[in-house]
Amino acid sequence: MTRIACWTAAPRVGDLAGNCARSVAAVREAVTAGAGLVVLPELVTSGYVFTSPQEAAGLAIDPGHEVFAQWSRAAGDAVVVGGFCELAPDGTVFNSAAVVDATGVLAVYRKVHLWDEEKRFFTAGDAPPPVLDTRAGRVAPLVCYDLEFPELTRALALAGAEVLAVPTNWPLVPRPDGERPPEVVIAMATARVNRVVVACCDRTGTERGVRWTAGTTVVGADGWPVASRDAEGLLLAEVDLALARDKRLTARAHLFEDRRPDVYRAPAPVRG
Amino acid sequence: MTRIACWTAAPRVGDLAGNCARSVAAVREAVTAGAGLVVLPELVTSGYVFTSPQEAAGLAIDPGHEVFAQWSRAAGDAVVVGGFCELAPDGTVFNSAAVVDATGVLAVYRKVHLWDEEKRFFTAGDAPPPVLDTRAGRVAPLVCYDLEFPELTRALALAGAEVLAVPTNWPLVPRPDGERPPEVVIAMATARVNRVVVACCDRTGTERGVRWTAGTTVVGADGWPVASRDAEGLLLAEVDLALARDKRLTARAHLFEDRRPDVYRAPAPVRG
Repeated sequence: MTRIACWTAAPRVGDLAGNCARSVAAVREAVTAGAGLVVLPELVTSGYVFTSPQEAAGLAIDPGHEVFAQWSRAAGDAVVVGGFCELAPDGTVFNSAAVVDATGVLAVYRKVHLWDEEKRFFTAGDAPPPVLDTRAGRVAPLVCYDLEFPELTRALALAGAEVLAVPTNWPLVPRPDGERPPEVVIAMATARVNRVVVACCDRTGTERGVRWTAGTTVVGADGWPVASRDAEGLLLAEVDLALARDKRLTARAHLFEDRRPDVYRAPAPVRG
Repeated sequence: MTRIACWTAAPRVGDLAGNCARSVAAVREAVTAGAGLVVLPELVTSGYVFTSPQEAAGLAIDPGHEVFAQWSRAAGDAVVVGGFCELAPDGTVFNSAAVVDATGVLAVYRKVHLWDEEKRFFTAGDAPPPVLDTRAGRVAPLVCYDLEFPELTRALALAGAEVLAVPTNWPLVPRPDGERPPEVVIAMATARVNRVVVACCDRTGTERGVRWTAGTTVVGADGWPVASRDAEGLLLAEVDLALARDKRLTARAHLFEDRRPDVYRAPAPVRG
């Protein structure tokens, strides 16, 4: 079994130093608690609700920033996936996720599906997430809205991902009484149809008028939530990655072998 | 608003005449109740749990069978989607869905994803479902396990489908207390990420030792269940197809325009 930690945080927009320091403390706490994989929210270093591209650029950091070295030093045997506002050498700003272990920054993924106003502040990435063979299994980072595009999650599962590590900032949207956040329903279905673990780390609080969902949830590879946490702090969840490595459902049914790419290639005609 | 009727049935395996007669009565009842779209379960004419390919072939019918003319005569202004065991002219047997209105059989779709033992009894279809411009909106039929392949449901939504009409026979599988059937969770996510209505018509009862889920559920284009029925009989649900025709989420977010096919084409590499 693998222990996953997600830190439901409340970053303060603009407080780069404070957000970074709190994120390092959270990684330490998670590693002390035995986590093999630590997921932090989207844009955990900067906060989310920017008022201008200039503000976003002023809070953007590059993968050489000290916070990643601190995550690395705190990681021990764990792998850390966390969102940050990235400044590229040419000044471009991305909504990114870093994957870090004790050896340093393993990868930086730039969110390809920008949500709503993010399009004002960020440039979209142009490459799919990497699938990384780590001590915590084969991990692929995604950021928030990315999870809602089944083409991408399927591609990652087919490429061997066992865990989708998803830093998120889910703005609160209406839902019927008693229902989970819609994004969690999508995470459950994603896990079920691909037999992958989906670890969504959300934020909490209210930022410049935006209320957050605090929907942090780890979904097992069987599609059922293992644990959730809607308050600030650390969620721990045990997941079985062996299940994610075996896509066989029955003697004659197999999630991937039953796919029909020959049929998906053909466009469906409209007939009236 | 469009009224959808789903008939949670208990077909008797082998009783072709009785199953057909009961299905016609259900269509009449649904149309009398004002349904614009009537969905019947998978293999509603034949039953499901066959003991041999010969038994399946013996219960297979072609689209010229009287039951489809009866559905058509009972349809009034409605569209009927129901599953049947299909005999092709060359003797091949398919797990199919017929789409019928007052003018006759509009289309026959042959299930492309065969579940488990179905592979012993049926040949898989080799074409995607049609998207049909009907009086009940743009309807695409799917059969059961098909719904669990997001490549296919996405393709149908992109082709303009507003309603996925899904005859199913869901064998009961374990689920945590208080959870919906996993197939319903998948239907909810499918509806949400594509903004389409998903109408799943399941069966009930126990057949040759197989217990059925009786998970009949209509999910609105916003991803939330409108109504469910786990007992034999007719479920009625009102859905808004206008929502399914508009994929805009916010001023700057759009379910389809935000897709990144350039990224999905690139295989995700594994890096260790």
